[in-house]
Amino acid sequence: MKVGLIGLGKMGLNLGLQLLERGHEVTAFDVNADAVREISGAGATGANSLAELVQSLDTPRVVWLMVPHEHVDGVLEDLTPLLAAGDIVVEAGNSHYKDSIRRAAQMEEHGIFYLDAGTSGGISGARHGACYMVGGDPRAWSQVERLFRDTAVENGYLYTGKSGSGHFLKMIHNGIEYGMMAAIGEGFEVLAKSEFDYDFAKVAGVWNHGSVIRSWLMELTEQAFAQDARLDEIRGIMHSSGEGKWTLETALDLQAATPVIAMSLLMRYRSLEADTFSGKVVAALRNQFGGHAVEKNE
Amino acid sequence: MKVGLIGLGKMGLNLGLQLLERGHEVTAFDVNADAVREISGAGATGANSLAELVQSLDTPRVVWLMVPHEHVDGVLEDLTPLLAAGDIVVEAGNSHYKDSIRRAAQMEEHGIFYLDAGTSGGISGARHGACYMVGGDPRAWSQVERLFRDTAVENGYLYTGKSGSGHFLKMIHNGIEYGMMAAIGEGFEVLAKSEFDYDFAKVAGVWNHGSVIRSWLMELTEQAFAQDARLDEIRGIMHSSGEGKWTLETALDLQAATPVIAMSLLMRYRSLEADTFSGKVVAALRNQFGGHAVEKNE
Repeated sequence: MKVGLIGLGKMGLNLGLQLLERGHEVTAFDVNADAVREISGAGATGANSLAELVQSLDTPRVVWLMVPHEHVDGVLEDLTPLLAAGDIVVEAGNSHYKDSIRRAAQMEEHGIFYLDAGTSGGISGARHGACYMVGGDPRAWSQVERLFRDTAVENGYLYTGKSGSGHFLKMIHNGIEYGMMAAIGEGFEVLAKSEFDYDFAKVAGVWNHGSVIRSWLMELTEQAFAQDARLDEIRGIMHSSGEGKWTLETALDLQAATPVIAMSLLMRYRSLEADTFSGKVVAALRNQFGGHAVEKNE
Repeated sequence: MKVGLIGLGKMGLNLGLQLLERGHEVTAFDVNADAVREISGAGATGANSLAELVQSLDTPRVVWLMVPHEHVDGVLEDLTPLLAAGDIVVEAGNSHYKDSIRRAAQMEEHGIFYLDAGTSGGISGARHGACYMVGGDPRAWSQVERLFRDTAVENGYLYTGKSGSGHFLKMIHNGIEYGMMAAIGEGFEVLAKSEFDYDFAKVAGVWNHGSVIRSWLMELTEQAFAQDARLDEIRGIMHSSGEGKWTLETALDLQAATPVIAMSLLMRYRSLEADTFSGKVVAALRNQFGGHAVEKNE
């Protein structure tokens, strides 16, 4: 089917290539003209503007947004006047589910359907088969289900119910991911400090064959150690993109006890700082009451 | 090859069946005569005593222990006088690595090799292909590697180096498992308290197809929800068998910061109590300083 793809970053470009490969007609737009040229070379119709993209589609139009969540409102503001009642917007980035609920209500005022699609599987997923969790109006879902089926791995998509439920589920998925990754990291932390001389790539490798903790994350761990046996080339600074924080904020609102996910998020923040103020305070207090030595700043 | 199997619990019995299936000659002993009869029916030679088991083996003998870790020292005490220099004992249970180092040294005094083998994959792994991490003398390893290769999934075994390194690695594996399981549990905790009406079996199912958190644990999660949609039939009491505690104790000794694994262990302990004394103290303090209401015991 015809689909207008907005956003040709790492995820959008690869999704576009997959859509083309599966026989869909893709019109693509991005503020980066190079990305538009690249996907045009692969068979897409390049659009120089949102208006051009919308004009190329048949009604009811299907527009797929794959842009960073901070740009979604801006794109929708420009896009909405170009669309008509019955059109469908799929937003497949990592938006906060409350934003998706709000946006779906705003679009509904114009009779436009708005589906919130959580996308997992990383860049390789976008290119070769992703995992989708999609919320929104079931009438819109039935019209675009094919696009998800065609670009997901087998059984890799789920219609999750009302607006917001797709992005909510993706948020929780990422919260679980934070905890799982922290557990893996901490396990190797202990191995690295132990008296034993393990080959970490082989350790992750054997754990991927028959163990209880076999997982895609452990496969990525194996790959990482295969490339750099002790990860000497990188620093242990753990950035985050928001979903872990949202998971924790949501858990707090719901009074859901999630200390492991919370700790995995807080330890990411800890990793961003070379020194901490809380550490200074504790060191100063030990010195105050017990005369314990402090480490002086140079 | 000929192997003497001691311990026919859930793990040992299934491992014995797999060894037989792979063409090995198994003599088996357990204090439970019913288990001995069961495996004899499947082609093993049943032994009525450790002496009978040892007598049935060719030298150098290979004896495989699959007994709860608290029984290992007792079995070794009875077994050692029956063995001779050059014999090999494989201990494939969940022993503390320091016990394994001590036992290997004790056996070495008699010229007996002692391999510490961490076994993962659960009961189905023991039956159809496990994951092994094995430490100990490389001369013994080369003699028994076949047994591990034949009962592991493909690429599912690793020789990890000196004595203790197998059980140490299995301990860390279990520590990671604690954290991963807690993260999964907490994620579903938030889903259960959310405004959305998810089918948890389908959620776990879609996460197993293309998502970043796809894993064997998530497959087991899917199975559990398929059997009992909201797990109404079970209580959230999380027992533990020791490896998570050992991981944390080891991390403390090594000053390795592992707060996520620590939290997952502590939350297991929390789950064992219907009420907590720390909760009483905090409630009492809020009442003391702020007059905040407390919930009275009936």
